[in-house]
Formats: sequence, structure tokens, C-alpha cells
Amino acid sequence: MWYEIFYRDPDFVRSIQVILELLGTLAFALSGIRHAAEKKYDWFGGFVCGFSVAIGGGTLRDLMLGVTPFWMTSPFYVVCTMLAQVIVIVFAKYMKRLDNTWLLFDTIGLALFTIAGIQKSLTCAQPFWVAIIMGCITGCAGGIIRDVLLNKPPVVFQKEIYAMASVAGGLLYWFMVWLELNFAVTVVVTFIAIITIRFLALRYHISLPVLQSEE
Amino acid sequence: MWYEIFYRDPDFVRSIQVILELLGTLAFALSGIRHAAEKKYDWFGGFVCGFSVAIGGGTLRDLMLGVTPFWMTSPFYVVCTMLAQVIVIVFAKYMKRLDNTWLLFDTIGLALFTIAGIQKSLTCAQPFWVAIIMGCITGCAGGIIRDVLLNKPPVVFQKEIYAMASVAGGLLYWFMVWLELNFAVTVVVTFIAIITIRFLALRYHISLPVLQSEE
Amino acid sequence: MWYEIFYRDPDFVRSIQVILELLGTLAFALSGIRHAAEKKYDWFGGFVCGFSVAIGGGTLRDLMLGVTPFWMTSPFYVVCTMLAQVIVIVFAKYMKRLDNTWLLFDTIGLALFTIAGIQKSLTCAQPFWVAIIMGCITGCAGGIIRDVLLNKPPVVFQKEIYAMASVAGGLLYWFMVWLELNFAVTVVVTFIAIITIRFLALRYHISLPVLQSEE
Repeated sequence: MWYEIFYRDPDFVRSIQVILELLGTLAFALSGIRHAAEKKYDWFGGFVCGFSVAIGGGTLRDLMLGVTPFWMTSPFYVVCTMLAQVIVIVFAKYMKRLDNTWLLFDTIGLALFTIAGIQKSLTCAQPFWVAIIMGCITGCAGGIIRDVLLNKPPVVFQKEIYAMASVAGGLLYWFMVWLELNFAVTVVVTFIAIITIRFLALRYHISLPVLQSEE
Repeated sequence: MWYEIFYRDPDFVRSIQVILELLGTLAFALSGIRHAAEKKYDWFGGFVCGFSVAIGGGTLRDLMLGVTPFWMTSPFYVVCTMLAQVIVIVFAKYMKRLDNTWLLFDTIGLALFTIAGIQKSLTCAQPFWVAIIMGCITGCAGGIIRDVLLNKPPVVFQKEIYAMASVAGGLLYWFMVWLELNFAVTVVVTFIAIITIRFLALRYHISLPVLQSEE
Repeated sequence: MWYEIFYRDPDFVRSIQVILELLGTLAFALSGIRHAAEKKYDWFGGFVCGFSVAIGGGTLRDLMLGVTPFWMTSPFYVVCTMLAQVIVIVFAKYMKRLDNTWLLFDTIGLALFTIAGIQKSLTCAQPFWVAIIMGCITGCAGGIIRDVLLNKPPVVFQKEIYAMASVAGGLLYWFMVWLELNFAVTVVVTFIAIITIRFLALRYHISLPVLQSEE
């Protein structure tokens, strides 16, 4: 079967994982720093906003799970944020042209962090409904914290399918675990599903209904 | 004595507790979702705001006490928030007419969550002054988080006696424990006191003084 | 050597520490309450904003380190905030005249809390790069939380060298530990360095570059 590669070549899988995590973290940090630039924040403000997007969701998850926040166990995430900061400062004028690239990386980040959140919660012996919420928090809370720090209403509450792609991926993951499917298959299918749902929603302008006001 | 019912019929007491907790959680979630609707947030935004009011204060308390956040131990609170979401979506037009009912439920929630916060802190071997602060956080922090997510100044900082009813209830609880009064009496009197203080403050437009500006 | 006094007279050192902590906490709480007064918050809002500045950064640090938040171990910080509240209420008109005094106390607080954050993180067996971040969080996060509660963009993201003084102090501390300098020397030099950097930056209007917008 195609998925046997994941067992035959663990180094290859590990490399792919690290590259995806690098791209995802970079994209999350970039989104924070670029929004900070729009608000005329200084370099420190940019770093904090970028770092908050990159690690905010996972940190909230880890605090609630009662484990040490993941970013304290390796300098990888601080270094990624510094890299993103340098990119924004040096290539400010060229960032917009690459918007589709950042969108792709950002969606990779959403898919990856959702899955990581689910797996970490299950490892901590949480039930699946908690794991799905934690997956969503891991993927989305960083962006909410960013918008709070920017003094804006969180964009994830008003536009696009973003959080719902994460929740749908979590439910799919649950379903595949219930079917007792192979672990690698479960992860890869969930990963692709989250990315596909988000891009389909963007392509066809699908969004959640707005709550009706009471007048 | 009247309070002996609490010992003669533990099932009855437990049922009342669950009903009160349902009403309180529902009212807290409703307040979050309705405010989100005013801001034109979508269904996801509404759910997050509702859930934040319902569990935000207790989660902050549990993180500081070093225990697992209470909402992760039972799906009750997620289900209550979903129920509140359905109510707001289906009955949007009728919500305003029931404003007095929601106010009553909300006040029940304040009283209940304050007492729960105090008791949980004491169980965690905290001193009473910490327990009173935790009671106030349990009752009020959710609403503050809601207003932060709505990008508004927290309403609890500007209007009405709300937090002070919680603090007054906490001091009363402490006083009754110091007097070594019966446990059921302590809880019931505190519960009634918090509700009474809030309604008297609303009825007679009593509020805390505003801080004077420096000019 | 001059620093031997720290070993010959531990009571003297302890007294200085308590006085500095009192001044720092008071200044942090005052900044929260005065900003709340500008926003016309009531007494409760003022207290929460003041308390958030005084304990917010250290609480975030302690949650991430997995230890009980420091303010729960002694009523000192609550009492300091109450004292600050009384000062603001009684002496509202005279506060502005003392602005230079508050600035000095606030800078003492920044230096002290940075060092306390670094030391506590090292005690918790964290690596030095985490300790420096924790020092910065201890000194700066309270002010960010205050501005979020005031519904304003955090001032630390837009003006002055504030956080960078904390980070520079942290790096200097690291360097001196690496040189295996005497502990008392390390602490005192870091303390003076942070205060000096901040005042030089204020005096010569040094600030971080603003992120360039993309147009």
C-alpha cells in the first residue's frame, strides 16, 4: 500500500514533518508581523504579534492539558519567528505578491496544528470531544490573540471557513479512528481534508451564516 | 430546622444544583452569543463568545489553582453552549421580550459560580482571601473575556454592581464559616444574598463611584 | 569588595528588596488604575486594571512554568494594589505632579520584575533563552493586559524602549553568569543597566524602528 512508505522510511517522514512545521510556523508568524506592520507597531510589537500567532494556540492548549508549553522545549519556534521578522523587514515590498504562497503555508499550518493538537490531547488521555476542541484551539486561538493585541475584532469570527475546516478535520479524524484505519492514513487524509475544505470554501465563497441581530 | 432537607434528601439537592447550573451556564452562554450577534459575528464567533462567558472564569481559576479546567471533565458545558446557540438562532426575535428572565438566570449564574469558585479554591487548600478573589473571577472573568473578544471596554468595569455582589457574597460566606454556621445554611444564605444585592443595586440604580480623571 | 555587604548583612539586603518590590508593585498598580481613570472606569475596573499590571506578567510566567501564581502565596500584592487605589482616589489631583517619581518607580519595577522572572525560570530548570523571555514577560505582559482591558492598542508596541531594556538586561545577566561573576554583582549590575537603558532611551528619544507598511 502507498502509506507503507511512512513505516519503511521514518527519516523521510520526519523530514517532511519538520519542513511542514517550519512552513506552518513561518506562515503563522508572518501573518502576525504583517498585521502589526499595518498598525504601525514597532519591531517589538511585530515580534510579539508574530510569536503570539505562532505559539498562542498551542500554549493555551498545553496550559489546559497541564503540560509545559511546547515552545519552551525547543528554540525552533522563537527562531522561526525571528526569521519571519527578518523576512518582513527586508522584503516588505515583495510580501503582497506572494500572498497566495502565504495562504498555502498558512493553511498547511492550520492542518498541521489541528492534527498536532488532537494527538497531544489524546496522548494526555483526554476524550475525543476535548481533543477536537483542542485541535481547533491549536489552529485558531493564535490568530484570535493576534487580533486582540491589534485591538481589532477577531477576523476568524467574521469571515471565511477557517475554524470549521479545523473542526471538520477533527471529526473526520475521530471517524477514521473509530473505523480503526491505519494511523498514517488517518493523519494524511485529515491533513488533505482540512486543506481542501479551506480552499474550496475560499474558491466558492462559502462561509458560515452570520448571527441575526434582534431588531 | 428547614435546612435539614439538604441532608435528608441528597438527590433532591443534587437535582436543584444541576438545574441551577444549567440555567446559569445557559444564561452566561446566551449573553455571549447575543452580544456576538450585535457585532455581526458568524456562528463560530457566536459559539466562541458564548463558550468564553460560560467557561472563561472557571477556566482561569482552574489554571491558577493548578487543576484540569472543569469543562474538560464533562461535555455538559459544551452542550449547554450549543443549546444556547440554537436558542439564539431559532428564537432571535423573541429574545428581547425575555430579557428579565435572562437577567434572573444570569444572576443565578453569578451567585452559583461565585460559590463554586470559593468552594473549589478552599478544597485546593487556598486561604480565604484567595478563595474570594477566585469566586469573583469565576463569576466575572467570562464576561470580561467576552468583551475583549468583542473589542469593547468590559461592561463590568463601567456599570452596575455586578462584581461587588460576588465579592460581598464571598465576604459573607467567610463570615459564616468563621461563625461555624451549618454548611447548607452558609451556601443558601450566600446564594440569596448575592442575588438580592444585585437586584437591589439594579432597582435603586446603585453603582460604584467612577474613578476621577486627573484634570 | 563593595558587594560583600550583601553577604555580611542579609537583613539589610532583604529590607532593600522588600522596599523595591513595594515601590515597583505600587508603580505598576498605579499605572493601571490611572489609565482606568482616564477611561472613566469605576472603582472595580480600576482595581482589576491595577492588579493586572501588578501581577499579570508574573502570573502568565508562573502558569507557563507550572507553579502556583506568586500573588496567591502572599496578600502583599493585593494590599499594594488596594494602597495604590486609595492613593489614586484620594490624591487624584496631585498625581500628575509626581509623574517623574512614578516613572522612576515604574522603571525600578521593570528592572526588578525582569530579574525576578529570570531567576524564577532558572530555578525551574529552564534554559537561559526561556528565562530571558520569561523576564521580559514578567516585566511587560502586565502592561499589555492592561491595554487590552482598556480596549487600546498596547502602548509598549508603539513607543519607547521598554521591553528592549528588559531583554538587554536579560542578555547582560546571561553574559555575566557565563563569565561566572559573583551573584550579587550580576544582579546589581543588571538592575542598574535596565534602569539606565530605559532612562537613556527616554532622554535621547531612542526607540525601535516601526515596521514598514507594505504600500
